[in-house]
Amino acid sequence: MTLKEARSALMTLQEKIAAYGHAMSVIYYDGSTTAPKGTAANRGRSLGVLSEEVYKLQTGPKTVKLLEFLDAHKARLSQEEKRMVFLMLKEIRYLQKLPMDEYIAYEKLLVEADDVWHRAKDTSDFALFEPYLEQIFDTLRRFAKYQDPEKDPYDYWLNEFEEGLNKEKCDAFFGALKERLVPLIAKIGKAEQVSDACIKGDFPEDKQEELAHFLMKLIGLDLDHVGLSTTEHPFTTSLGSHLDERITTHYYREDVSFSMFSVVHEGGHALYDTGSRDEFAFTVLDGGVSMGIHESQSRFYENILGRSRAFAYVIQPELRKLFPKNFAKASVEDIYKAVNRVQPSLIRTEADEVTYSLHVMIRYELEKRIFAGELKVHDLPAEWNRLYKEYLGIDVPDDKHGVLQDSHWSGGLVGYFPSYAFGSAYGAQFLKKMKETVDVDRCVAEGNFAPINAWLRENIWQHGSLYTPAELLDRVLGEAFDPMVYVEYLEAKVKDIYGV
Amino acid sequence: MTLKEARSALMTLQEKIAAYGHAMSVIYYDGSTTAPKGTAANRGRSLGVLSEEVYKLQTGPKTVKLLEFLDAHKARLSQEEKRMVFLMLKEIRYLQKLPMDEYIAYEKLLVEADDVWHRAKDTSDFALFEPYLEQIFDTLRRFAKYQDPEKDPYDYWLNEFEEGLNKEKCDAFFGALKERLVPLIAKIGKAEQVSDACIKGDFPEDKQEELAHFLMKLIGLDLDHVGLSTTEHPFTTSLGSHLDERITTHYYREDVSFSMFSVVHEGGHALYDTGSRDEFAFTVLDGGVSMGIHESQSRFYENILGRSRAFAYVIQPELRKLFPKNFAKASVEDIYKAVNRVQPSLIRTEADEVTYSLHVMIRYELEKRIFAGELKVHDLPAEWNRLYKEYLGIDVPDDKHGVLQDSHWSGGLVGYFPSYAFGSAYGAQFLKKMKETVDVDRCVAEGNFAPINAWLRENIWQHGSLYTPAELLDRVLGEAFDPMVYVEYLEAKVKDIYGV
Repeated sequence: MTLKEARSALMTLQEKIAAYGHAMSVIYYDGSTTAPKGTAANRGRSLGVLSEEVYKLQTGPKTVKLLEFLDAHKARLSQEEKRMVFLMLKEIRYLQKLPMDEYIAYEKLLVEADDVWHRAKDTSDFALFEPYLEQIFDTLRRFAKYQDPEKDPYDYWLNEFEEGLNKEKCDAFFGALKERLVPLIAKIGKAEQVSDACIKGDFPEDKQEELAHFLMKLIGLDLDHVGLSTTEHPFTTSLGSHLDERITTHYYREDVSFSMFSVVHEGGHALYDTGSRDEFAFTVLDGGVSMGIHESQSRFYENILGRSRAFAYVIQPELRKLFPKNFAKASVEDIYKAVNRVQPSLIRTEADEVTYSLHVMIRYELEKRIFAGELKVHDLPAEWNRLYKEYLGIDVPDDKHGVLQDSHWSGGLVGYFPSYAFGSAYGAQFLKKMKETVDVDRCVAEGNFAPINAWLRENIWQHGSLYTPAELLDRVLGEAFDPMVYVEYLEAKVKDIYGV
Repeated sequence: MTLKEARSALMTLQEKIAAYGHAMSVIYYDGSTTAPKGTAANRGRSLGVLSEEVYKLQTGPKTVKLLEFLDAHKARLSQEEKRMVFLMLKEIRYLQKLPMDEYIAYEKLLVEADDVWHRAKDTSDFALFEPYLEQIFDTLRRFAKYQDPEKDPYDYWLNEFEEGLNKEKCDAFFGALKERLVPLIAKIGKAEQVSDACIKGDFPEDKQEELAHFLMKLIGLDLDHVGLSTTEHPFTTSLGSHLDERITTHYYREDVSFSMFSVVHEGGHALYDTGSRDEFAFTVLDGGVSMGIHESQSRFYENILGRSRAFAYVIQPELRKLFPKNFAKASVEDIYKAVNRVQPSLIRTEADEVTYSLHVMIRYELEKRIFAGELKVHDLPAEWNRLYKEYLGIDVPDDKHGVLQDSHWSGGLVGYFPSYAFGSAYGAQFLKKMKETVDVDRCVAEGNFAPINAWLRENIWQHGSLYTPAELLDRVLGEAFDPMVYVEYLEAKVKDIYGV
């Protein structure tokens, strides 16, 4: 094999893998959007075949040989090719270090755990889920040691979900958040409350859908390449490449803000994905680099832009047009305050901007202590409830609304939560940097997102997965990541709204 | 390889092929239903990869070896396995007899021809399409000779699309139709016309969708396994297996009957597919055996049941509920007559039950004469227009509404049209047979489709592709196919409605 042939084979291989990805994503997407309810098993059968086929393609001897050959000649590869080979080899190295029987047993465990978690959540019965969760933590501890015997297992998993992350960084970050946000939330509780009356009421689904399309166009999504559907839980997915992107939302008739901010949030993910360089399509560099950077974009649009005063100003006429009864008397200030109401609550995904990170922090602390052997899985619910009381001041009525609420652990995603909070914090620092050259508030108020999008495309989106999250942050910020920028952003906003 | 291993490998192979089929079908389905409009090229790229992968799987040396081994031991295979091996080998044998360069050139020609046909149709410019159509006919003549040098090329292609069909059978069939239907249509033209006023008006899409679901349930579709979406052109597709079936419709605000009969027509296809034995799922025996039998089912539901007086009776209350303005004063008789209005028209897919077969017959005659060298492609438009005048009494204003209307020829589907007409005729003979044991009119009038569906499931649906169309007809009818049953069915209906 010549190097030229190998480079060409690398592109063909990635195109194939992307096509399988397309197939599996669209089967999943179809299942969540339009499939008749009795068809899950049929989809599972096809997904089983396709995932086995793509697994063989990704990790088979021919692929390993190709990637090792390219890796041996990396001095002669482009920056893009080097990163492709690195990312593809990483997955193979991971699997090579796992005993195959343990890997298969774990995959099986996760399928069962997901099923048991659903039932446990429905009946608020943690005891049912407990043995599975114990096995998951045990396996993850063991798997981390197979990969890197020297490394702390929790550090291993934090780094897996956000390259460069570890406990030290998390401790510093969450420590700063805890110190400033916990007293802030307590102060808000004693301040004069704001009303969210205008966003509650009766909002017909077809009008909410019109609003969704208005918002997608407003923030600059290309509707020729980004589709909208409805699902139980909103999500974003690429089909094949960033040239076909889908977002979903869920309409609640009694609350217009849920779908509104879902669309802007998922729209942020979609802007990031679709902003990849076109030549990255059908390669592993296509789309966002990590969960953390992805959330930095989605939460940037949802919160930093979407929950700004300027945004309330630019959407007010549309809200009045679509929902005259609800918004005829609502001022820009009323809308701005309504969508920024701070209220400690039980469910992470429904939390406001200020309390959100504390939900994440609680999960981080619990995961860390379990990995360190300081906390037993059995004691998780009690500890969960204690921390919600301590940080958010609320009582958890049952495990369904507590420790069983998230699907992550049953899916083996331990070490994943922190990236949500880091993403929010990255976004605040991006804003500070962006404001050096872009009049962000004015752009938003004028409904002119082009300069904002151009800045993000230039600095972040176009690169896809070419840089690690840490490299990307360095390039964008030109300074170290500083959680205080985020804390100060939140404090200023609270001051603006609650006067405290 | 032991026989036991080979039999097991046969099932695994089919499951894989079905999973690829699932992937490609759902990508196509997504493209027709919800995909953003700028994403076709992205889908094409993935479809290209997946179709190449499944092609290698279907025709690769490992597959050939397996199938030839099983074929050599067919005495020890079950009836089902024998048919599987036969069907899978058939496709391989076909390809083995074609020079690879000619096959590739033809695939390329079809891609171009499809594009050119679209443009030619838009601008009503047959000259643009003519050289491509000439090449398609030439290639098909050559390919037929490669397959069977002794056989007449058109007979070869007729048999490809409907096993057992040839010119002799078509001539007899269309001859009988022509002799009786052409004068019948002329008589209708002179008779008192019926009104279709009640089905024309303004019918909101959401109400039409309600009607669609009502009809799906009425004819006995299992909505847990059959979904409904909207597309430009209605179609039916299975995803993976008959356990996940989708039909589509198109709502015209000004005409309630289009979607109504689309749903019942596609519903007939879906009933046939979903009626396959469950153990046929993920095998080549799953779903209907041929276009002709498939159309016999769809057109049975659409026309024989759906355009019966009993059907008008059973749907009248629902029509009145959903569209009170339009149907408050419409009697069962008004509805029955409105949906059975006979009117010679230009477009095959919009033709009524009586004139439909003549549209097909015209295409058959033209194809036959081109294959026989009696007609040049260049002279097709003039000949097309002449036959429309002769048989249907109408003038074709341009090629867009004439010879360029169908997509079949640009896709290489020559010899395909007759199966539409045969399907209609099979249905009439099935009805006659069914009436020996089922009180069809009473069942329909009572909205009790179970006995009808049970009869069709027992006799046709459950067998999937196990029997050839000819074998299936023999089993169901116990007598020879007789086109006069269909002619008499149409004549009786016309008599009932027009009194002529």
